[in-house]
Amino acid sequence: MSLLIVGSVAFDAIETPFGKTDRILGGAGTYISLAASYFGIQPKLISVVGNDFGNENLELLQKYNIDIEGIQIKKDEKTFFWSGKYHNDMNTRQTLVTELNSLEKFDPEIPDSYQNVEFLMLGNLSPVVQRQVIERLTVRPKFIAMDTMNFWMNIMLDELLKTISMVDMLIINDEEARQLSGEYSLLKAARKILSFGLKYLIIKKGEHGALLFSENQIFSAPGLPLEEVFDPTGAGDTFAGGLIGYLARENQITFENLKNGVIAGSAMASFNVQKFGVEQLLDLNQKMIYERLQQFVQLAHFNYQPM
Amino acid sequence: MSLLIVGSVAFDAIETPFGKTDRILGGAGTYISLAASYFGIQPKLISVVGNDFGNENLELLQKYNIDIEGIQIKKDEKTFFWSGKYHNDMNTRQTLVTELNSLEKFDPEIPDSYQNVEFLMLGNLSPVVQRQVIERLTVRPKFIAMDTMNFWMNIMLDELLKTISMVDMLIINDEEARQLSGEYSLLKAARKILSFGLKYLIIKKGEHGALLFSENQIFSAPGLPLEEVFDPTGAGDTFAGGLIGYLARENQITFENLKNGVIAGSAMASFNVQKFGVEQLLDLNQKMIYERLQQFVQLAHFNYQPM
Repeated sequence: MSLLIVGSVAFDAIETPFGKTDRILGGAGTYISLAASYFGIQPKLISVVGNDFGNENLELLQKYNIDIEGIQIKKDEKTFFWSGKYHNDMNTRQTLVTELNSLEKFDPEIPDSYQNVEFLMLGNLSPVVQRQVIERLTVRPKFIAMDTMNFWMNIMLDELLKTISMVDMLIINDEEARQLSGEYSLLKAARKILSFGLKYLIIKKGEHGALLFSENQIFSAPGLPLEEVFDPTGAGDTFAGGLIGYLARENQITFENLKNGVIAGSAMASFNVQKFGVEQLLDLNQKMIYERLQQFVQLAHFNYQPM
Repeated sequence: MSLLIVGSVAFDAIETPFGKTDRILGGAGTYISLAASYFGIQPKLISVVGNDFGNENLELLQKYNIDIEGIQIKKDEKTFFWSGKYHNDMNTRQTLVTELNSLEKFDPEIPDSYQNVEFLMLGNLSPVVQRQVIERLTVRPKFIAMDTMNFWMNIMLDELLKTISMVDMLIINDEEARQLSGEYSLLKAARKILSFGLKYLIIKKGEHGALLFSENQIFSAPGLPLEEVFDPTGAGDTFAGGLIGYLARENQITFENLKNGVIAGSAMASFNVQKFGVEQLLDLNQKMIYERLQQFVQLAHFNYQPM
């Protein structure tokens, strides 16, 4: 039931065809924690921010039941800043600014109260930092999931493969799966990536949903058709947060639970893209989530009796 | 239970990264009929071929329980010929040759024995020809589905919209849905296209599956992850054939049956892309289809109980 999340806490400036924001709260750790917080657990967050982060943002995270003891505040540095622009189809984005700031020399520290966690979600960070977290936990969590991105495949593939071999589940998108495996077919890509030492692999396909692979099973989760995607920022992190939050609440890893976790993550991500930044994640309730989950059930359910 | 299919019967020459074929049996009417023939009904086919078509091909269609009385043989013309080349990702194809030949002045004739059919599937053809078939049936079938393509949207949109308004269900791909509606969001596109006078719309998304829309409901069918796609030719037609074959067999139009029909069509299409041309469609049996349908059930099934 205990869940540790490691990931960036940042400021984002986002531009989409629908509008523009200036320095709003962002970062993978923020999205993952907020999404997970709706599943009846208190996520413990490990991250780093600068002197500009502000108490109001820390208090906001606490208000959403996130344990912030693991957030380091670097007095002489600034918070990680990312700025990006989405084009009309929302599928391509251009990074305008990346200022790593306090994230550049991030040395993750595990507070004593964070030891013995059962679930660990490693947000997209350097695979070296991700591994340090695993190594600094005195007891290996019973389930470790991780995200990564093509950037790490390009500049430190060996480190990445080493970290992948230490976790249970990898969550990446289709393009990343193709790059990591060198295979175009997602089925072949999945087999190859699983052979890197994983029990489970999730391949996210944006509006087309997500695929969950184990050695012998495949599950395809639908994408919910939406009127508009206002801002895709953090959708993948929100997906991971809903998924790991669900798993931590259920506290049992079976393929059936993983399927449901993928649905939970998909539902949370479908909310997230409907407003800018974390705005929608700050304004959800259990009734809304219940109804969205029902929509997914209706969307995917059929009762074919092959003859 | 009676099913009428209208569509081209053709020769195709196909090149994919996996190989090359010369003048093999093809055409929308062929793929649709062959796929439908596995659902325990005798499809009646309306089409036209030239003097080069050959009795062996007609006998082949008959061997698969297809009623060929409605295939006109034009003694002074040649059979429709299409040649195309697929690129590495199989998502883009280049048309090398299109010789309409006997299809150019196709004037569909309805044999008396074809009157009073209950299900009608209009394969991709000029919307004028599609409409002629509807008008030449003395009794409107209880369910009419049609396919079309961007070509007709470009050159005779008014005729196309007129034909669409006369059918129950339209089956197109995502790109065509966006072009026909002028909307990028498939949800908005679907609402707009349904308003053209349809009860149901299916949007095919290739490897990402298919979406089924009615006024109030949406169903998302998964795409089955495959090792390889050898040849996508006819996948959309095979999908339509499996779908309409299933519906004609069940003989009842409900949203639940349509969902199952979409799964049946997806299963048939997943077979079709695994070999060149109609090769795999000529070599299926009920056990293979049953097992493939089971794979779809396992792929999509989950049992989330939202709390």
